[in-house]
Amino acid sequence: MKDLRFGLIGSGFMGRCHAQAMMAAPVLFELDGGVTRAMLADADEAMAERAAAALGFERSTGDWTTLVDDPDIDVVDITAPNSLHKPMALAAIAAGKIVYCEKPLAPNAVDAKALMEAAEAAGTKTLVGFNYLRNPVVATAKEIIDSGEIGDVVGYRGWHFEDYMTDPAAPYTWRHDREGGDGVVGDLGSHAVSMARYLVGGIEAVCGDCDTVTTERPLAAGNEATRPVAVADQMRALVRFDNGAKGTLEASWLATGRKMNLACEVTGSRGALTIDLERLNELRLYKVNQAAGREGFKTILAGPDHGDYAAFTPAPGHQLGFNDLKTIEIARLLTALASGEPPWPDFREAWEIQRVVDGISRSSETRNWVRIGEI
Amino acid sequence: MKDLRFGLIGSGFMGRCHAQAMMAAPVLFELDGGVTRAMLADADEAMAERAAAALGFERSTGDWTTLVDDPDIDVVDITAPNSLHKPMALAAIAAGKIVYCEKPLAPNAVDAKALMEAAEAAGTKTLVGFNYLRNPVVATAKEIIDSGEIGDVVGYRGWHFEDYMTDPAAPYTWRHDREGGDGVVGDLGSHAVSMARYLVGGIEAVCGDCDTVTTERPLAAGNEATRPVAVADQMRALVRFDNGAKGTLEASWLATGRKMNLACEVTGSRGALTIDLERLNELRLYKVNQAAGREGFKTILAGPDHGDYAAFTPAPGHQLGFNDLKTIEIARLLTALASGEPPWPDFREAWEIQRVVDGISRSSETRNWVRIGEI
Amino acid sequence: MKDLRFGLIGSGFMGRCHAQAMMAAPVLFELDGGVTRAMLADADEAMAERAAAALGFERSTGDWTTLVDDPDIDVVDITAPNSLHKPMALAAIAAGKIVYCEKPLAPNAVDAKALMEAAEAAGTKTLVGFNYLRNPVVATAKEIIDSGEIGDVVGYRGWHFEDYMTDPAAPYTWRHDREGGDGVVGDLGSHAVSMARYLVGGIEAVCGDCDTVTTERPLAAGNEATRPVAVADQMRALVRFDNGAKGTLEASWLATGRKMNLACEVTGSRGALTIDLERLNELRLYKVNQAAGREGFKTILAGPDHGDYAAFTPAPGHQLGFNDLKTIEIARLLTALASGEPPWPDFREAWEIQRVVDGISRSSETRNWVRIGEI
Amino acid sequence: MKDLRFGLIGSGFMGRCHAQAMMAAPVLFELDGGVTRAMLADADEAMAERAAAALGFERSTGDWTTLVDDPDIDVVDITAPNSLHKPMALAAIAAGKIVYCEKPLAPNAVDAKALMEAAEAAGTKTLVGFNYLRNPVVATAKEIIDSGEIGDVVGYRGWHFEDYMTDPAAPYTWRHDREGGDGVVGDLGSHAVSMARYLVGGIEAVCGDCDTVTTERPLAAGNEATRPVAVADQMRALVRFDNGAKGTLEASWLATGRKMNLACEVTGSRGALTIDLERLNELRLYKVNQAAGREGFKTILAGPDHGDYAAFTPAPGHQLGFNDLKTIEIARLLTALASGEPPWPDFREAWEIQRVVDGISRSSETRNWVRIGEI
Repeated sequence: MKDLRFGLIGSGFMGRCHAQAMMAAPVLFELDGGVTRAMLADADEAMAERAAAALGFERSTGDWTTLVDDPDIDVVDITAPNSLHKPMALAAIAAGKIVYCEKPLAPNAVDAKALMEAAEAAGTKTLVGFNYLRNPVVATAKEIIDSGEIGDVVGYRGWHFEDYMTDPAAPYTWRHDREGGDGVVGDLGSHAVSMARYLVGGIEAVCGDCDTVTTERPLAAGNEATRPVAVADQMRALVRFDNGAKGTLEASWLATGRKMNLACEVTGSRGALTIDLERLNELRLYKVNQAAGREGFKTILAGPDHGDYAAFTPAPGHQLGFNDLKTIEIARLLTALASGEPPWPDFREAWEIQRVVDGISRSSETRNWVRIGEI
Repeated sequence: MKDLRFGLIGSGFMGRCHAQAMMAAPVLFELDGGVTRAMLADADEAMAERAAAALGFERSTGDWTTLVDDPDIDVVDITAPNSLHKPMALAAIAAGKIVYCEKPLAPNAVDAKALMEAAEAAGTKTLVGFNYLRNPVVATAKEIIDSGEIGDVVGYRGWHFEDYMTDPAAPYTWRHDREGGDGVVGDLGSHAVSMARYLVGGIEAVCGDCDTVTTERPLAAGNEATRPVAVADQMRALVRFDNGAKGTLEASWLATGRKMNLACEVTGSRGALTIDLERLNELRLYKVNQAAGREGFKTILAGPDHGDYAAFTPAPGHQLGFNDLKTIEIARLLTALASGEPPWPDFREAWEIQRVVDGISRSSETRNWVRIGEI
Repeated sequence: MKDLRFGLIGSGFMGRCHAQAMMAAPVLFELDGGVTRAMLADADEAMAERAAAALGFERSTGDWTTLVDDPDIDVVDITAPNSLHKPMALAAIAAGKIVYCEKPLAPNAVDAKALMEAAEAAGTKTLVGFNYLRNPVVATAKEIIDSGEIGDVVGYRGWHFEDYMTDPAAPYTWRHDREGGDGVVGDLGSHAVSMARYLVGGIEAVCGDCDTVTTERPLAAGNEATRPVAVADQMRALVRFDNGAKGTLEASWLATGRKMNLACEVTGSRGALTIDLERLNELRLYKVNQAAGREGFKTILAGPDHGDYAAFTPAPGHQLGFNDLKTIEIARLLTALASGEPPWPDFREAWEIQRVVDGISRSSETRNWVRIGEI
Repeated sequence: MKDLRFGLIGSGFMGRCHAQAMMAAPVLFELDGGVTRAMLADADEAMAERAAAALGFERSTGDWTTLVDDPDIDVVDITAPNSLHKPMALAAIAAGKIVYCEKPLAPNAVDAKALMEAAEAAGTKTLVGFNYLRNPVVATAKEIIDSGEIGDVVGYRGWHFEDYMTDPAAPYTWRHDREGGDGVVGDLGSHAVSMARYLVGGIEAVCGDCDTVTTERPLAAGNEATRPVAVADQMRALVRFDNGAKGTLEASWLATGRKMNLACEVTGSRGALTIDLERLNELRLYKVNQAAGREGFKTILAGPDHGDYAAFTPAPGHQLGFNDLKTIEIARLLTALASGEPPWPDFREAWEIQRVVDGISRSSETRNWVRIGEI
């Protein structure tokens, strides 16, 4: 297979992360074909040119539509601000590209559905960047659950806590707009939802309680003028899964002391497991029927037997990092494209995730359970 | 002050725990007066006599009403099966005793209220055995929260998970009756509620989701005949506190791998703390405004600066155990009685806890938020 | 069997700990006979009288020889300052008592040997208070090692770190005298040695490196006058066990941040285990030949399947504390006496431990390996 | 500055790790100049050609001397088997290249010294791949120690435990030869030594105890014929640092259950810190004079305030992995070369590390303390 020609839109933290993953994936994985960093688009020409040079892209443009329309581009890779995901993705679908978009795909389920429908109508191959699902210990957790190793799932607790909005003096940003993705519910809650769906399955109904603790934020750092905050800082929800399991989902960007606490506890009828991405390379596992006096949770360190870990190093316990998860994501995209399998998680999955996010918000407003099928 | 004469009803695991605490409290604490193990009542004379000998009680009886009516008894200490708490406590109130009852005081809020009202009408001093609240690290958590050390509480997660009902072949017991205390909601959920109320304050409303995973249990071990289970195995609830904090409360006796996981995470605007009684002697604490690059949760080991730890040993890190918490409970009861302060948590607090428990169950049935004031 | 009549010498922290254990043991364990708190001796009559009242002893004396010579006393229980252990134990042996002495039995191996020989010549039953060996997780570790569950022991790391001498302004005490027990080597190192001997077996040779970091200490708190410190603050040693295993032993009372870090790591050819008494109720266990991708250390919480845990509570994970270990020690003493088995660890074992302690010190002075058989 | 042209020798696990780091470093770091993957040498032409294609090198060769002599190559990067490090490095020095060599530089201090002297005589810039020193938490530990934040170092415990040789059926390899680097002493012990020297400083004397547990290994997997093993499986040593601190160093490749347990505990007079690379992104820190009742070890998660973490992601807690450490190593090499500063750790440091390794082995043979100055 020939190299895929990537057009990257955006060169911030996440754009850079994608660029390094485009380079690393073909080196670390045995892939049928590589990646060409063909073009980079950014907010203006100068910025794009500098970024292209720094990140090793062949060409650059200050106009993302140029990139999308370029016949030389196979994959449009969107890491621009969230509010631009929709027009960019629609244009890329229209242009017949493979579309790879950072999460959240859209700020609400209506938009996500429109994108999903456009992509499916056009037969577009899509991928959304829920990179935490690529973690080898998450892959192992899924394998354990799917194989019945811990029996039927009876309880699930999922959460994503960070503290980067704890300071009430942190200024108002696009994250505080509804359009930016529904506050913490979309920002971090979507990760918790994606993990829950990946590990346990579809969600039938939710009952949420979201709240805004910091109701005003300065227009800019140190600015006395403030702007009201419309979105939630904290989210909590009861959830019922399609398969009968029950659980809770929580998210907060005010979780003082938590830096990257995307975590879950899965209780099965014959075992349990826990993951906390602040310890990215660990899985804790318990099973019933251990020898008397020898029962306990095992701490399993990621190693070559877990997911795609072996691509990085043959030695267990040597640890993967955040950027490695993006490398796996791109390697899996390339593999899917080479094999003809649909990439995953695609726009449909992103829509499904967003429905749960919206369901939690709506349920919080109406103070009632909401069936996801109605979103 | 003269020694208080205790009459203990029940000599099972918990009765024995009370007996050792009656002996230890006067030795370890500097108290104004001691404890006399005056009489022990159990299901029949022979059993009571044996238990009195083993536990060092002066007299015994197979009829608890004899104990309650004995003029020589100051404190009636009830560790009998839950279904007997109500008649015993009412009789003890009527007899003018100090009444010390194991939790749960009653299987529902109606009964708890009746007991509370009877006690208050009679001016009875009461104590209910929520011994986990006596843990020095819990006392320290309360001190940290009350002093504003972690700012305003914005989020609370409390849970009590054990796995002793995980096996579906475990037989039907009184715990599976509504009368036994509403399943896991009353059994373990009440601990989670008591901790939440102690640390954060009153609960205004709840929205619960309780479910019964194991819907039939054998009549006895190995028995093929089964009996339907009416009570919940798992409980999850959204909660709103009177002070505006929001959170979740959960309980399960099917939490595979968890042995004594009564835990909470308290997020404040300026810090956070966590407790997990599977590590009974640890408190984790985070505060904002730590030096750059030096931010982290501290693991604080219990020591003589925490609660009543110093009564047990002057050396930090040497650890208290489960029975020590009961010793603190009794020492605090004696101190309160000596000083004339009302003991705490009393029947009123037990009723308040039970209202939340009932609110969660009712809310789960109606699938709606329930205001605790209406219970 | 009739109750044993205990005479307790000393009523400080450790005396109080013994007293509560004398009460708790007969209540919590099913013993063939109980304990009578018959007499308490302390530094003067008034002090002894107060302590006897507080701790529930029948009689008191300001002269320990009175206690030792009293025909009504069965067990002489020595918790007096270390420097008095020798004369008290010798007198008790001479008086035909059972002798129960806190550790360290003696400040050096010569004295320990003299005591051991006197006791053995007289046929005295003896016990020395190495209470950490009574921890249920230590008992389980021994069971795991002895059964071959982790194969042959190939490596051992044992240490006891605390930080109570970290402050150089902490005044000179008897602990800083050679006579007080050889500094940290005897004080904390002896615990590390006792654990190593208990779990792995006899020690053939050592090579130690001890040093005194704080070479002067104030005569009293706040005092400008100082006194040179003759004993070690830190100890490190290479060790070779009789069975061929090799390891290290370390101790420090300057281990900033460590409160009760008596710990070990035992590596076997087919598994490994670790203990750290700052987490008194946990054992970590690894075994070879776990399923691929499921290898990890298990964290086992103490429960009724471990050692004497079940005497305290039938519920796993509910935790024992420091004082409970002393209760087990006394229960085991009573059981041994009732059955006619020799109590353990006895004066001989205390001497063996002290030989290793002395060997480490001597080896550090000579900067050479020392064979324990030559001490 | 122009791009540096790298010639990579070896394309195994470590060669691939270097290749990805050569790509990632210029993208993630703001460097004055980049890396050209100019030539790859491997054992034969076909292998080299395949590897060059996979790893993105312009040219390839089956003869490493061709690479070393190629005028187009700036940096000779040696990841070939250990036994070839010496001839390759000498040739590269002779050819006037910058020499970047994986650890261990040489199997013993004599060879390491010869290499160091050759490099220094030629004015060669050298770097040895002790990549664990590049970990942001290790950098932070060094900063904490050097600044006096934890006072004077009084005690140090360093170790590197893995279990990849636990199985006695694992066949004989070059690692079991003296020439391969002195068994575990050079293989893992050198990491422990490099960390100790980096954090605390020079080592004055050692007293080691090394042993070979598995004395025979099969010639190949499943082979009945065996070969005697000449090198140590386990190493333990007492160490004295030049600055007066004392400690222990240990290494084992039989440490059942340990996968990447390169760890240290540094005790200072005013604090302590611990690192364990099985939790690559964590540092535990304790300081004296914390508020009463609030003393504890902090768990600090790596973030942008630590070392070179910020180059990878601006978000704390998101974690770096093993390969990222190599990327930092190469970024630091490029920075040093651009600035004219000597790269570090250079051949001199590698020799110093090897002297300690040799000192431990010699001391174990003679069963005596050895002064490193005499090696």
